[in-house]
Amino acid sequence: MTTKDVVYVNGSFLPRGEARVSVEDRGFVFGDGVYEVLRVINGRLFATRFHNERLERSLDGVRMNLAGADSPARFVEIGKQLLRENGLLQGQATLYIQVTRGAATRVHHFPPPDITPSVYISVARFTPYADFAQTGASAISHPDLRWGRCDLKTLNLLPNVLASQTAKERGAFEAMLIRDGVVTEGTKTNFFGVVNGSLRTHPCDTHILPGITRSVLRDLARELSIELDETPITAAEIPKLSELFLTGTTTDVMPVVKLDDKPVGKGQPGELTRRLQRVLAESLASGGD
Amino acid sequence: MTTKDVVYVNGSFLPRGEARVSVEDRGFVFGDGVYEVLRVINGRLFATRFHNERLERSLDGVRMNLAGADSPARFVEIGKQLLRENGLLQGQATLYIQVTRGAATRVHHFPPPDITPSVYISVARFTPYADFAQTGASAISHPDLRWGRCDLKTLNLLPNVLASQTAKERGAFEAMLIRDGVVTEGTKTNFFGVVNGSLRTHPCDTHILPGITRSVLRDLARELSIELDETPITAAEIPKLSELFLTGTTTDVMPVVKLDDKPVGKGQPGELTRRLQRVLAESLASGGD
Repeated sequence: MTTKDVVYVNGSFLPRGEARVSVEDRGFVFGDGVYEVLRVINGRLFATRFHNERLERSLDGVRMNLAGADSPARFVEIGKQLLRENGLLQGQATLYIQVTRGAATRVHHFPPPDITPSVYISVARFTPYADFAQTGASAISHPDLRWGRCDLKTLNLLPNVLASQTAKERGAFEAMLIRDGVVTEGTKTNFFGVVNGSLRTHPCDTHILPGITRSVLRDLARELSIELDETPITAAEIPKLSELFLTGTTTDVMPVVKLDDKPVGKGQPGELTRRLQRVLAESLASGGD
Repeated sequence: MTTKDVVYVNGSFLPRGEARVSVEDRGFVFGDGVYEVLRVINGRLFATRFHNERLERSLDGVRMNLAGADSPARFVEIGKQLLRENGLLQGQATLYIQVTRGAATRVHHFPPPDITPSVYISVARFTPYADFAQTGASAISHPDLRWGRCDLKTLNLLPNVLASQTAKERGAFEAMLIRDGVVTEGTKTNFFGVVNGSLRTHPCDTHILPGITRSVLRDLARELSIELDETPITAAEIPKLSELFLTGTTTDVMPVVKLDDKPVGKGQPGELTRRLQRVLAESLASGGD
């Protein structure tokens, strides 16, 4: 461990407490930006290419251009430097990358083309949720109040914040968001469920974030000849769930054993959940860039 | 005019270029905050009580508590000091007030209770859209991709940003947002339209911001015995519009004479629009705190 806590913002490496942005930054006044969170184990970054591709996709989706000099690959290099400087090459950590449309006089439409995007990159020690991974976590259902482009990883996260807080107050790890009668995803996770013996998850459309771990899991399931049905689980099907788990960069495969205070299946992590949890753990143990 | 440009942020009065917030501010990483914009004419603030009430309502809606010492009334006092310091007591100006949930280690749920909200207040010279007020502006229709609590004036403004940019690129002043087949409002305005001789606007629900100017206009219409029907205008009714105008703190009553490149009514500001424009202008000329 180290007491250093250096972050990167707009070209400078600074102690976190001194890292600041303009009050006119469009991230601050409009939430006008996008981000990524990467998993780091003993200095190895996971699924960097997928995160970089998704960051490019989010940038495209909000029509933001990086200046020629910068690229997601460069952000990852900065992240690696931060991991070194902060003594995070051993153990687990997360790498956070955020890009906003820069600081300019407040108008809704885009700023003049000479305004440079703001880049904020930081790393942090991460402790996996080992207890919940073992015993299973609880979740609540919650209306999905988010906007129509949940496939973009943007800073407009207030609905996620509010649902996440409600989950916390009800002693739950996550809120399962329900839109138009179907479970879309969690506030910061995707999910998979087993209904009538079939592994199901919400398809990738504008209502969910195309999760990297979701995608890795889908590939691992295919390798194990486990069929995945991307037909959304309806709210009405919730009582029929025999297994349920969340996936995410920091949640891995997290069993959910209680939903809205009712047991999911037998109230303990299911067999398929355990199996996929193991194969993902193996993938994490052996993988990394 | 003056070259001074002082803003307020978290207890300090600073030149705009030096005013900064932490990269960990929840406004910057989550858009986790709310705001208001007030109109100022010759140092007089308009509808302060309504703006303060709406700010309280937005704060309640996102479950944010101001520390005991601060209040919307205090923010307005700070705004008045900024108007004086920046030499904006003559002519027109806007007062911007933003409150976020403060700076804390990034977690989706609320930060610990000892985290103080961040407050950013600034004033700016404002030039009314005199030309458009006279000739009428153009607008486009655009899908309303916003979240389910548009009645709260939050910083989650990315859908507004994107629609506003599209409008600008198409040479339009505003984008009229369409959700589930009805016109809800603009990206930063409400609107009123005349269909078959009836003045109509979207009712106040979770899909529109309860605009202060919208509310003032409704009262003025009532005084003039002009009936207002708060039945939403459908997309299918757009071709039947004989008059259309936007309302907002900085738009006043703005006639829209072209929508999606087609003339609205006779392609010039309508009679009722002109009448309401006049009464609002009189109200602005005589009113203020």
